[in-house]
Amino acid sequence: MNGIRVTVWNEARHEKTNSDVQKVYPSGMHHAISEYLKAQGLAVRTATLDEPEHGLTEAVLRQTDVLTWWGHLAHDEVDDRIVDRVHQRVLEGMGLVVLHSGHFSKIFKRLMGTSCDLKWREAGERERIWVVDPSHPIAEGLGEYIEIPHEEMYGEHFDIPAPDTLVFVSWFQGGEIFRSGCCYQRGRGKIFYFRPGHETYPTYHNPEVLRVIHNAVRWTAQPGGPELRYGHRPNMLENINR
Amino acid sequence: MNGIRVTVWNEARHEKTNSDVQKVYPSGMHHAISEYLKAQGLAVRTATLDEPEHGLTEAVLRQTDVLTWWGHLAHDEVDDRIVDRVHQRVLEGMGLVVLHSGHFSKIFKRLMGTSCDLKWREAGERERIWVVDPSHPIAEGLGEYIEIPHEEMYGEHFDIPAPDTLVFVSWFQGGEIFRSGCCYQRGRGKIFYFRPGHETYPTYHNPEVLRVIHNAVRWTAQPGGPELRYGHRPNMLENINR
Amino acid sequence: MNGIRVTVWNEARHEKTNSDVQKVYPSGMHHAISEYLKAQGLAVRTATLDEPEHGLTEAVLRQTDVLTWWGHLAHDEVDDRIVDRVHQRVLEGMGLVVLHSGHFSKIFKRLMGTSCDLKWREAGERERIWVVDPSHPIAEGLGEYIEIPHEEMYGEHFDIPAPDTLVFVSWFQGGEIFRSGCCYQRGRGKIFYFRPGHETYPTYHNPEVLRVIHNAVRWTAQPGGPELRYGHRPNMLENINR
Amino acid sequence: MNGIRVTVWNEARHEKTNSDVQKVYPSGMHHAISEYLKAQGLAVRTATLDEPEHGLTEAVLRQTDVLTWWGHLAHDEVDDRIVDRVHQRVLEGMGLVVLHSGHFSKIFKRLMGTSCDLKWREAGERERIWVVDPSHPIAEGLGEYIEIPHEEMYGEHFDIPAPDTLVFVSWFQGGEIFRSGCCYQRGRGKIFYFRPGHETYPTYHNPEVLRVIHNAVRWTAQPGGPELRYGHRPNMLENINR
Repeated sequence: MNGIRVTVWNEARHEKTNSDVQKVYPSGMHHAISEYLKAQGLAVRTATLDEPEHGLTEAVLRQTDVLTWWGHLAHDEVDDRIVDRVHQRVLEGMGLVVLHSGHFSKIFKRLMGTSCDLKWREAGERERIWVVDPSHPIAEGLGEYIEIPHEEMYGEHFDIPAPDTLVFVSWFQGGEIFRSGCCYQRGRGKIFYFRPGHETYPTYHNPEVLRVIHNAVRWTAQPGGPELRYGHRPNMLENINR
Repeated sequence: MNGIRVTVWNEARHEKTNSDVQKVYPSGMHHAISEYLKAQGLAVRTATLDEPEHGLTEAVLRQTDVLTWWGHLAHDEVDDRIVDRVHQRVLEGMGLVVLHSGHFSKIFKRLMGTSCDLKWREAGERERIWVVDPSHPIAEGLGEYIEIPHEEMYGEHFDIPAPDTLVFVSWFQGGEIFRSGCCYQRGRGKIFYFRPGHETYPTYHNPEVLRVIHNAVRWTAQPGGPELRYGHRPNMLENINR
Repeated sequence: MNGIRVTVWNEARHEKTNSDVQKVYPSGMHHAISEYLKAQGLAVRTATLDEPEHGLTEAVLRQTDVLTWWGHLAHDEVDDRIVDRVHQRVLEGMGLVVLHSGHFSKIFKRLMGTSCDLKWREAGERERIWVVDPSHPIAEGLGEYIEIPHEEMYGEHFDIPAPDTLVFVSWFQGGEIFRSGCCYQRGRGKIFYFRPGHETYPTYHNPEVLRVIHNAVRWTAQPGGPELRYGHRPNMLENINR
Repeated sequence: MNGIRVTVWNEARHEKTNSDVQKVYPSGMHHAISEYLKAQGLAVRTATLDEPEHGLTEAVLRQTDVLTWWGHLAHDEVDDRIVDRVHQRVLEGMGLVVLHSGHFSKIFKRLMGTSCDLKWREAGERERIWVVDPSHPIAEGLGEYIEIPHEEMYGEHFDIPAPDTLVFVSWFQGGEIFRSGCCYQRGRGKIFYFRPGHETYPTYHNPEVLRVIHNAVRWTAQPGGPELRYGHRPNMLENINR
């Protein structure tokens, strides 16, 4: 899978209005992520909410093997037709990597079928992201855990379907745990949810966090199986009993 | 779990217009299912598409532990507000048993997040529903397989998330297989999809099929765990480090 | 499932030699657990390592619907023939609830196929056992988490197969997390691993911990499906194509 | 993952004594599989039961990324020390692809923890291996199903743990179905069980079957995550609360 084509999508609103966020991500969170992925040899473009069609035209999605998604303030402003389009592409085989507050995005809720709600607290506390599936390619190159000195807390219950594979579980200093790395299959597509990434912390400059995003892009981009055909199927009895 | 309250929902349109269906189910498929469940000691009511609010008022759903769902011709006529209401109740803990062509219902697609599409053929062929999880309470009281002499074929790929637990796989005479008994958890609710039940065959008079529906009602009605609280969580550090 | 017959098995060696343990469990940990289960209306017996056949004769196992297992110091002293016997009964449908240091028992390792190794630390630290599957009957009657003020720490990686269902994840004060409530199916049998229960703490006097053990006994005791037949199967073609 | 090092293991007894098998596989089944994998650019060696240490010395296993396993007549002749060695290597991260009658091998039973029993019939009947997870890399390059005109039947119940991922389900002409492509994680290792391959049929000359074996080798060879450390873990409280 050389030549994976990634579209890094960002709501990119905090970056316009919040000077704390601007200091950490002067060109936006999408820039931090996309520059890293480019340096790994991937073909990367970015797209943001305020572009026409949120930057996710039919043409762009057709040329996207994996879409990464960060949103927070403006989930409701994402056009339902674009959500339909992304949904369709995931079922056809496009990978989707959902980051942090993207848990509440329309596309993630659509794919999960649940509220995707959770507990949260902004206290700059310590997070440890433990690997619970050491056989998984998304954990490649990591140590036993990733330590992030200051992050927003997300706590259980996280209202998602039980992941097909649970790769990471987070520990938070204040007493909570969270299923932080969750793999799903939907149609021909693969989805990975990855928890960290509050906008006021330099989480997307952390090399281990970026490594996970890279691994997740590679994992969700893996070519799957057959083209799928649905609907009426002619009688095959002659064939079977011949 | 004595006193389980079941609402058997049926689109009930075929029964009004198709004399073949009327012969098999003179009082409707919901009648065949509800009479059986009553005889098992459950508290059963029925509801159909053409009743006000499709028979699924707030009051009815509040008093429903498990909802069973059969629909086919008129999925699109189910009001989105009622779908929202049922969805919310499932996440809160109401069981849902989806039957046969209910795979294409709005509520099942909403909960699955996929197209729920499949292959099909009406050829009156033989189906064998094999038990692949013999530890599961939904298989209680069955033999190794249920044989149905004449059924509609449903074939893979069935576009659903991988079941949390796969209980049954069907064999069809014409050469196809199908994941026929699929368990899911969503929020506090449990969901079971069960394949057989084409309207022109007496499938819902088959005692083993009815046994599975009864088992599924009991399984999805099991009381789960805690009430869920989401949103902001105060700082617990004092508590933790005391 | 009234009349569930439970055998509470305990290595019961710490209780003979360690005065700290004697203070907490003067009649042994098996006594604390079995008295509670009796009070819930179950038919309970106990069995310990130093009895003939470890108290697990063919007759006892035939009359056991669910076996609970606590061991620590003397896993190696458990006779392989008894392990074979318990293994066979689990595959036939007996429930098994493995507690705390029972993770290293021969029977659990046999059923898991892995080393079942983990990290540990005895520091009397705080544990919070969070419910991650609120739909599961093993979480019935609990709050969002169980708090245990002083326990031994168990940390990931826990070398087990990914649970069929993950019900609990523990948070530890010292920085670790652990998959604390793990459901498995093997043959017709159900298995539940539950983490807490270090011998020097009064964990098996905690009403919520006991509630989980009771819930787990009920869940693993649920009658499953068909008797299983293996081996040669005669040609069915005549039957199929008739 | 270029340069994957594969060891193709074969019991290789049928080939010595059965002229029907010799006609189909004059150099042994391992030859058919290994030649194909070599042609795909992998580094392949073979090993057989009658070699010293069954060809699986410490040195060979250290240099093996993925081991494929076919056995049938002589499972009991495999030395337990070699089974221990292979088991340990799987937990450390070596991939394992178990073929057909290898379901009854010591190593597969050890890793599964169950009897691995099944139904069978030799009637030269038609098998269709349907893809049920079209997102999985093991299904890459396939059509919706693989059709094998003549194979031995394997039927459910197959006494295995529920697969982490179920990729294939087989349909048999005589009325049975079978979970034919099963993925597991154990420790850092990945395991794939693949059903077809009776010794008297040219199944391992079928290009689609070989494609699956190749895909499975690539999938099980994927580098996983961290080196695992178990045992005592020092108190981290100072670190956490600093």
